[in-house]
Formats: sequence, structure tokens, C-alpha cells
Amino acid sequence: MRYSTLLGKTKKEAPKDETSLNAQLLIRGGFIQKEMAGVYVFLPLGLRVLKNIMQIIREEMNAIGGQEFYLSSLQDPEIWKKSGRWSDEVIDVWFRTKLHNDTELGLANTHEEAFTQLLTKYIQSYKDLPVYAYQFQTKFRNELRAKSGLLRTREFIMKDLYSFNRTEEELNTFYEQCKNAYIKIFKRLGIGDKTYYTFASGGAFSKYSHEFQTLCETGEDTIYLDRKKGIAVNQEVYTDDVLAEMGLKKQELEEVRAIEVGNIFPLKTKYSEPLGLMYTDETGQQKPVVMGSYGIGPSRSMATIVELLSDDKGIVWPKEVAPFKFHLVGLDLAEAEKVYQTLIKNNVEVLYDDREDVSAGEKFADCDLIGCPYRLVVSKKTQGKIEVKSRTEQDSKLITVTDVLAL
Amino acid sequence: MRYSTLLGKTKKEAPKDETSLNAQLLIRGGFIQKEMAGVYVFLPLGLRVLKNIMQIIREEMNAIGGQEFYLSSLQDPEIWKKSGRWSDEVIDVWFRTKLHNDTELGLANTHEEAFTQLLTKYIQSYKDLPVYAYQFQTKFRNELRAKSGLLRTREFIMKDLYSFNRTEEELNTFYEQCKNAYIKIFKRLGIGDKTYYTFASGGAFSKYSHEFQTLCETGEDTIYLDRKKGIAVNQEVYTDDVLAEMGLKKQELEEVRAIEVGNIFPLKTKYSEPLGLMYTDETGQQKPVVMGSYGIGPSRSMATIVELLSDDKGIVWPKEVAPFKFHLVGLDLAEAEKVYQTLIKNNVEVLYDDREDVSAGEKFADCDLIGCPYRLVVSKKTQGKIEVKSRTEQDSKLITVTDVLAL
Repeated sequence: MRYSTLLGKTKKEAPKDETSLNAQLLIRGGFIQKEMAGVYVFLPLGLRVLKNIMQIIREEMNAIGGQEFYLSSLQDPEIWKKSGRWSDEVIDVWFRTKLHNDTELGLANTHEEAFTQLLTKYIQSYKDLPVYAYQFQTKFRNELRAKSGLLRTREFIMKDLYSFNRTEEELNTFYEQCKNAYIKIFKRLGIGDKTYYTFASGGAFSKYSHEFQTLCETGEDTIYLDRKKGIAVNQEVYTDDVLAEMGLKKQELEEVRAIEVGNIFPLKTKYSEPLGLMYTDETGQQKPVVMGSYGIGPSRSMATIVELLSDDKGIVWPKEVAPFKFHLVGLDLAEAEKVYQTLIKNNVEVLYDDREDVSAGEKFADCDLIGCPYRLVVSKKTQGKIEVKSRTEQDSKLITVTDVLAL
Repeated sequence: MRYSTLLGKTKKEAPKDETSLNAQLLIRGGFIQKEMAGVYVFLPLGLRVLKNIMQIIREEMNAIGGQEFYLSSLQDPEIWKKSGRWSDEVIDVWFRTKLHNDTELGLANTHEEAFTQLLTKYIQSYKDLPVYAYQFQTKFRNELRAKSGLLRTREFIMKDLYSFNRTEEELNTFYEQCKNAYIKIFKRLGIGDKTYYTFASGGAFSKYSHEFQTLCETGEDTIYLDRKKGIAVNQEVYTDDVLAEMGLKKQELEEVRAIEVGNIFPLKTKYSEPLGLMYTDETGQQKPVVMGSYGIGPSRSMATIVELLSDDKGIVWPKEVAPFKFHLVGLDLAEAEKVYQTLIKNNVEVLYDDREDVSAGEKFADCDLIGCPYRLVVSKKTQGKIEVKSRTEQDSKLITVTDVLAL
């Protein structure tokens, strides 16, 4: 893609109303823009990153048997009344709206009820199970204070998977599979080494739920981490009893700040019972389906990567997430154009800075700010070759276009 | 994909509350399900179709220089007040919601204002133009009566592109390019031969807008069609003056029903002026940006395809739209499994009916209902070969798996 025609050029200054690093860098880099407090829009560069993250998540969900759906944002209050959650006292982030005839509707803040209700139309027998259903859909959350850029917004795409099994044993097996899929996802997102499996409150139906917490000083959560064992406990369940149960010792735990990048819940029959999602087992008995839910917010993941991996020059995108693999800085535009043509003919993802009236210094600064894995420079000095530098290294070297294709 | 594990099996009967053919067949086929009046959810098969349609549209929008964005559903009333459209008297399909502090927000029913406002942050000079920005985003429309299945819903994904040019001449040039891109899209969607470029009302700023109307008896619109010339006039501008201007003669026009599958509007400066989207031209003068807008609803296209191309046995998906190219009916499951493995190893899109306790007749009926382009049958009778039949033909023939790969 030619940078000259791309909408969303870099900005030298971040808007004054943005205090979080992720919003500052993503807005300055031309990835996102603020629509209003807690609501952001994705510019072409930002959407490329978001789609890459979604594709990584999609691949790992498909690999464990996930089937992709697309549910609605408008929701029928009736299904929420069945589960007892149609109330600001139970869910304090409701957005609601109304039909012309004054019928109240909900805007989806989550989809447990909607998926459970939907599956009552398709699941009758044990033969119809298991089902692992997921989607990428917008969630609306009426947050009192929206801050922290993409970390906490009033509207965001979420991947939510729901598991439907016959028994708790089957749920537990899948739960473990999904946990491992999440570990793979965060590794591919480049934040795996800082992300810890964390015990959190399980609500009414389960002792625990589990979070994936990424260590970050600007995170909203406080967790207690046993680095050696590689597990953590959320502040909300940090009690002597819980620690004893897990064999954790207070003196071996660090209190650290973290960002919750994923969470998984053993819902069991919390929603299937009130919503009537039953199946007939091998002996003819009616039983409630045993459920779990598994969430990751792609845009929150994007923000976390920025918070964690940026340096004083800008963003450092991991390879699988980067908007483009290569950022080609054209200083000798005639020569650079040839390299660009060769790269796109070979289906290489490249952002080509072909601007005519911009200095080399500005182009380099923009390249560092945008943060693609490899910077390629073509200038009079490179004499038919290409200067390549990794975003995370200082040294560059001269290579041929064939070498670039092999990177 | 194995049909045995797919969620969303076929149903013999359509729900009684669905009167439109598209909703009946799409629900029976396991593509969609109703969440509530005017709100549908996409099951895995339906989402595959929807994604195929979106990808066709995306490719053609990229081909004419479109850049993909992703704006928000929550919208700031302030930008709508500037254009004078924050009112049920101007837009009668508003859905609104509120923050906890009682601040009212809009739910996007369209994005002219949002895109115009966004681009004020990026467009200053003539050098920043043109920009062709599009997205696939949810639109919420508070329809009084939602009926006709996916043809008219309260929530749907729409592709909306907005063009930003310096002059009306440039707008007209792009308008023509986008018109041609739309013609390509509807051809690829399999409804090109029934879709006509139609003159419609242009609103306050332009004499005409243009619709793409697909002939269909169940369509909501009435148009007057000159088949020879291949153009039509919407009822709303069907006057002697308009006909005279276009050189159309009443006696050569047919009154026909049609579905509006796309529309394009020359907005000119209708939104750029009130929202302050100005640029400095080559002589230093400030001028308003000249805009156009271009919409297609992927789910309405999906419904139109079903209305138009189905037969008494079910849906007939065009090749580029079909959820799978092949529907493999396994009657000899051991042999069929081998064929399935060969096909998926070759990255062929195949839906494999591997159900054990379902009759051949039921499997054939489901295959016709679901409507993939090719039916493959593997049975004791096919003796190591595969019986292939096109969805639209009666005759089948025996071919090898190598032949299937070459189809």
C-alpha cells in the first residue's frame, strides 16, 4: 500500500484528552481515532491489525472445534428476564433502546442468554452435543468512566465462545483445551511471556473462573503472581483459604498490576436451566446442557500489545499482528518504486512510503512510530541493494530484493 | 466440514411466522434463525455465505481504490445536529440510547456524518484528496414493520463507501467507476442479469440518485423498466418531465416489482459544508469537499439471491456465493470418508453429509435445500467413482476424484 494515498497519516502530537499510552500511540500512528469518550473508530492501518488479531483467534478457535456464528446486537429482554439479568442492579453496563411502539430492547453486553436460547432450537438429544459456538460481535457496555484508550471502551468487538456439553467432565476437558488455545493465541500475539493464568471469582455456580492477565503497570487489575509456578490469583479471591487450596505461599507471591486479556468461565447449568436448554441422554432422561464461556477482546489485545511492546520511538508490532511485514522507505523514489513493484508482485505485505516532499528523517520517524517488523530503505547510497533493519535492532545491512523475499 | 457436527441442521417446516420465501428457505436450510421480529442471527452456513458476499464486495471496492475502515455504532448526536438530521421527523428509523448520566446517543443508521466528521481530522489540502473510504458496519434502523426476512431488518451489516473529491467532475468520474464496480458485484452475486440501473430521487442536493433494482415479484419497490435500454425509473420520479429528459417513452416501459439491492448518491457538499470538511485548493482557496455515498447490504443481497434463484426443492447458490462448492452425500460412509479426506487435503470446500442414521432420500433432499453448486454421491453403486450432479441440472455422471478436483 502506498503511504501517500493512505488515510490516517501520523501526527506529531497525541490529542490532549488521551492519557493512555495505547491511545496516544495508536492515534499518532494513524491506527485509530476517537469518535467520543470510550468509542473509537479504526482507520485502515488499525483495521489491518485488528483483523490480523481476529484471524489468529479464529484459527485457534477453529482448531479446537469452534464453529463461527454471528448473533445480533439487539436483544430481546425476555431472554434476560429468564436468567434474572435484565436489571441494572445485576448488570450495571446496560445500554437499552426502544422500538417506536415503546417496546424496550437491550444492546448486547454479552451473549450467554442469546446463544443458550438459540441452541434450544437445535439441541434435543445427546447426539446433538457437543457444540462449540463462537462469534466476533460488538458488545456495548455502558461504562461509567471510559478511559485507558482501547483497554476499556463502550463499544468493542469481542470473540466469545460458548461450549455446550453433556457432562461436567466433558466441560472440564474442553475447558483445558480452550485454556491451551488461549495460551497459543497470546503467544502468537507476542504477549505470551507476560501473560499468566489467573484464578478469579467464579460467581454463583463455580468456585473459580480463570483470567489471562498480562503484566503491565498501567493495568486496572491487581494480581498475586507466583512466577516460578506461572500462575496468579486475582485480588478478588486472594484469601488464605484460596492460597492454601492452591498450594501457594504468600511470601512467594508478587503483587503486580495486570491487564485482563482473556477470561474463561465454567458456567455449568447457570443459563441452560433457566432458559430450558435441555437434552435427552442415552437413557431417555432430560438433563440441562453443561456450559462454559470463553472471551477475548481483539481491540483490548491490540491495546495491550501497544502498552507492552512499544518503545520511545513508537509501536513494535509482533510479526503476526503487524499491519505490514515491511515498511519500505523510499528516498530514491525511482529505485524504490521498482522494489515496491517486485514485492507486491510476490504478494509481500509492504507499506511503501512514496511521499515526495517529506524528509528522510521524518520518514524514518514515521516508520518507527508505525512499527512494522522490518524497515527497508532504498536510497542513492544503497546502490541497487536494500538496507534492511529490524524494528527492534539497531544495526542494518544491505541485502538484495531476493533476500527480502526470503525474510 | 462434517454435516453431522454442524450446528444448524435443516428443518422440514418453516416457522409459521415467516411469510417471505427467503426467511423460510434460509431458516429451513440452517443458514439463519430469527432472534426477534426484524432481527436475525447467522448460523455457520449462513455466515459463510454472508462472508463470501462481503468478500466479493470488498474486492471490487478495493479495485477502485477503496480503503477499508471500521467506524462505530454509537454516535454522537452533535454531528447529526450539524447536518440537521437528529430528528425523527427527518430520519424516522432512529434508535437511541443513553449513557448513565442521561446523555443521549444515537445508534448508527448510516455514517455520512460520522465519516465526514472523521475526515476533517485528516483532510486539509487538495493533496489529501481523493479519498474513497468504506466499511462493513452494523446499521440499526427502527423500522415500524419488519417483515420480508432479510430484506428489511432492524439490524444489518452494510457496506457503505463514501467518496471525497475536489470537484464535481472528479465525483462524476468516480461515480461512474463505482457504478461499474456495482455491476460487476451483482454479476458475481449471480443476479446481474435481473438487476437494472434505476433513476431515483436525489433529495435536496442532486437531481437524481441511482438504485440497483433486481426484478422480483416480492420486491417492495415499483419501477418502470425499459428492457431494451437496460435502465429503469423508480416510481418516485416517474413523471413526464423525467421521462422526457431521459428519452424514455411511457409505452416502452414495463411496470415491475423489484428489490433495491444497492444505491448510490451524489451528495456533493450536503454534509461537507455543515460539518466543515474543507480543503485548500492549489490557489489557496478554502472549498468544501465534494462527496458521494454508495451502499450495498450484503444480507439483503443474500435474501435477493434466495428469492430469485431458488426452486421448489430449495436454494440455488451461485458459485462464488455458495457456502461450499461441493456437497458430498455419503451413502457408503467408508468410501465417502476417503473422498472427503482427499478433497480437504486439496483445500477444496466441501460439506460432507456423514450422518449414519439418515436415509439417502433425506440426504438428497437436504442437499437440494442447502443448494451448493455440485452434489457428489459416493455409494456402493458408484464403485470407486463419484456421481456428480450440478444443482441446476437433472443429469448426473460418474467421475473420478481427480475430475472433481478439476471442476
